[in-house]
Amino acid sequence: MTDSFRVGLLGHGTVGGAFDTLLSERADAIAAATGRRPELAGVLTRSRGSFDDILESSDAVVELIGGIEPARTYALRALEAGKPVVTANKQLLSQHGDELFAGARASGTQLRYEAAVAGVVPVIRVMRESFAGAHIEKVHGIVNGTTNYILSEMARTGASYGDSLSRAQELGYAEADPTEDVTGKDAAAKMAILARLAFQAGVTLDQVPFEGIEAITADDIDYAKELGLVLKLLGVAERRDGRVSVRVFPCFLYGGHPLASVVGPFNAVTLESPAITEVTLSGPGAGGPQTASAVLGDVVSVMTTPGMDLEATEQVELIPSDEVESAFYLHLEVADEPGVLAQIARILGDNGVSVKSVVQKGIGENARLVMVVHAVAEGRFNAAVAEIGELELLRAPPRSIRVIEEEFVS
Amino acid sequence: MTDSFRVGLLGHGTVGGAFDTLLSERADAIAAATGRRPELAGVLTRSRGSFDDILESSDAVVELIGGIEPARTYALRALEAGKPVVTANKQLLSQHGDELFAGARASGTQLRYEAAVAGVVPVIRVMRESFAGAHIEKVHGIVNGTTNYILSEMARTGASYGDSLSRAQELGYAEADPTEDVTGKDAAAKMAILARLAFQAGVTLDQVPFEGIEAITADDIDYAKELGLVLKLLGVAERRDGRVSVRVFPCFLYGGHPLASVVGPFNAVTLESPAITEVTLSGPGAGGPQTASAVLGDVVSVMTTPGMDLEATEQVELIPSDEVESAFYLHLEVADEPGVLAQIARILGDNGVSVKSVVQKGIGENARLVMVVHAVAEGRFNAAVAEIGELELLRAPPRSIRVIEEEFVS
Repeated sequence: MTDSFRVGLLGHGTVGGAFDTLLSERADAIAAATGRRPELAGVLTRSRGSFDDILESSDAVVELIGGIEPARTYALRALEAGKPVVTANKQLLSQHGDELFAGARASGTQLRYEAAVAGVVPVIRVMRESFAGAHIEKVHGIVNGTTNYILSEMARTGASYGDSLSRAQELGYAEADPTEDVTGKDAAAKMAILARLAFQAGVTLDQVPFEGIEAITADDIDYAKELGLVLKLLGVAERRDGRVSVRVFPCFLYGGHPLASVVGPFNAVTLESPAITEVTLSGPGAGGPQTASAVLGDVVSVMTTPGMDLEATEQVELIPSDEVESAFYLHLEVADEPGVLAQIARILGDNGVSVKSVVQKGIGENARLVMVVHAVAEGRFNAAVAEIGELELLRAPPRSIRVIEEEFVS
Repeated sequence: MTDSFRVGLLGHGTVGGAFDTLLSERADAIAAATGRRPELAGVLTRSRGSFDDILESSDAVVELIGGIEPARTYALRALEAGKPVVTANKQLLSQHGDELFAGARASGTQLRYEAAVAGVVPVIRVMRESFAGAHIEKVHGIVNGTTNYILSEMARTGASYGDSLSRAQELGYAEADPTEDVTGKDAAAKMAILARLAFQAGVTLDQVPFEGIEAITADDIDYAKELGLVLKLLGVAERRDGRVSVRVFPCFLYGGHPLASVVGPFNAVTLESPAITEVTLSGPGAGGPQTASAVLGDVVSVMTTPGMDLEATEQVELIPSDEVESAFYLHLEVADEPGVLAQIARILGDNGVSVKSVVQKGIGENARLVMVVHAVAEGRFNAAVAEIGELELLRAPPRSIRVIEEEFVS
């Protein structure tokens, strides 16, 4: 007779329901492979179940309630009781990671969270295990499928941000309230989680500056196309000279960049390390069955791996945003008169900003300068843009978007 | 004081040397994370070391000798002694997998082999663990970096196969004797290993039909470009109606296909399953340090995970090649006279082959028909091509290459 492995399920919404179904479907195969049959010890919803009873009768707890409370309290209590916890809750991990991981270490148990980042793309496991022997320098990628769909639609159809968002909502790729996604906050939470693991350091959401895609116009995407650029919302966590930088921002990539071809509601994450050079993982960003599959993978790991969590051993210092270097695209609506470019070029030069390319578009009332500048400390660039913004010859506030200059080296 | 974990290293060539170096560099970090410090128990080369002594004093054995013997005997003896084995040896696994895995199961120990397939791309781990809860329907991708570099060069520069191979050799992407790579045999060995894991079935190298890239001409790539196609050497392992098919062949992909943008000496593998839809992993195909990193990842897993290997539980039946359905590109050098297309179209039609597109190129002595036909059982297509090959109006034997028709759905 096969022993059972009893799973306490907290939450029975889209993901919880899909997990319940998938667990039933795959229980036989998992029993054949591991010698233990996973089965539900109990289900807690708003209207039924007792957390105490479920905790008592479970070998592991799966938290799919979402949000901070009561998810935080339940997860902490399970960990304190020495029960492994599997969660898909990025808010919780990115805001209360320190106490959760401390709880897991204190009782020598595991906290697993593959489903919290990048949908079915198994970036957490690959970092934890495959690259346990590597020093990760940089993790970057597309970690929000909703915004990637919207930007792909804008580029493909020329539609506005608002129309593309509506389309995403119709197709179920965006929530009725899309704020967390389109502001970049969802991506920032995921980058905090990835940075914690990559750098073995206590990075939290409030340390991750983020910008979203709400201000992106179809014009920006059109002009950028002429420059051979593609717009993505990127999360970047990297080591630079002994410090780290973790950020989320919309960004133009050259067409040959490996992330440029990731279109639609997909996620893709690239890991860089001297030992491995780079590895990219990509796949659908979310969806109930996909998230449930990632949760089940973690449950199987908990069943087969008694390992405890790694200690956050490194103290890292975050680089102030002003000191991070970036290249930028700069879009200026200007008066169509002699000497305009000279004035702007002088301000950029005075601030140490070097121009890579400039194109004048339109004439008269529609005259615009579309520029790309080389990488420079963002504080200097912002100072130059503030100064340009004061010029009388500008017809609208300057618009700028970061650019990743490196071309893909095959 | 930290306990040590003693690693017996068999082989000290490019990968073995890189592993030795990486192990020293990363031992502190691994000790901090796992509580045990990995260190070499001994090194076996042709000229020094005793296997018996090394086996006796090791907690795990890393086999980086390559080839069948003595690697096979050493690996089996280590497994029989209950010592976990980590190997990068695709020949060994694809030809003697049954006895090796049986040896591991018999003594309840592990056989790990991430480095045998796809360089640093952690496809084995992702299949073993992340998708342990998923039913994998299909594994396909680019699993040989040498041929991908050669094909990328041919497409980029218009150079011949021979010149591109020479360039690959100059850059160290191809061996002095490139036979295993360019014939597709290396990729076939990797696909046998992937199919075994994906389908939990004893697939071996001799069950995998393979074709290489030696006969590919610059012309084929040029014409295909006009049709919007990109040439790749693909490995495909898939379930179809209760049977499986595992093959390696050069193949045209539509430009939007996620594997079309993988250029240079890179590998990329896509896993498909109803639960996860699809996940793609990509990265550099090989190189000593990268392979060593994959080996070290496996060593860390062996240190932290006592799990034993899964049993090969499924009996699978392989689909005869003639019954597998594929779409094809067909290149015919024909006499430039009326009625040629009609004759060819009749033969295709009689064999149930349906034409998707046809372009006539050149005139007189250079007249060619470049066609793409819809998916059809390969036996039928081959029968049609054999019949066309008999026609007097042909100036050279027909050339055909498979085509993946599906366009990428975002």
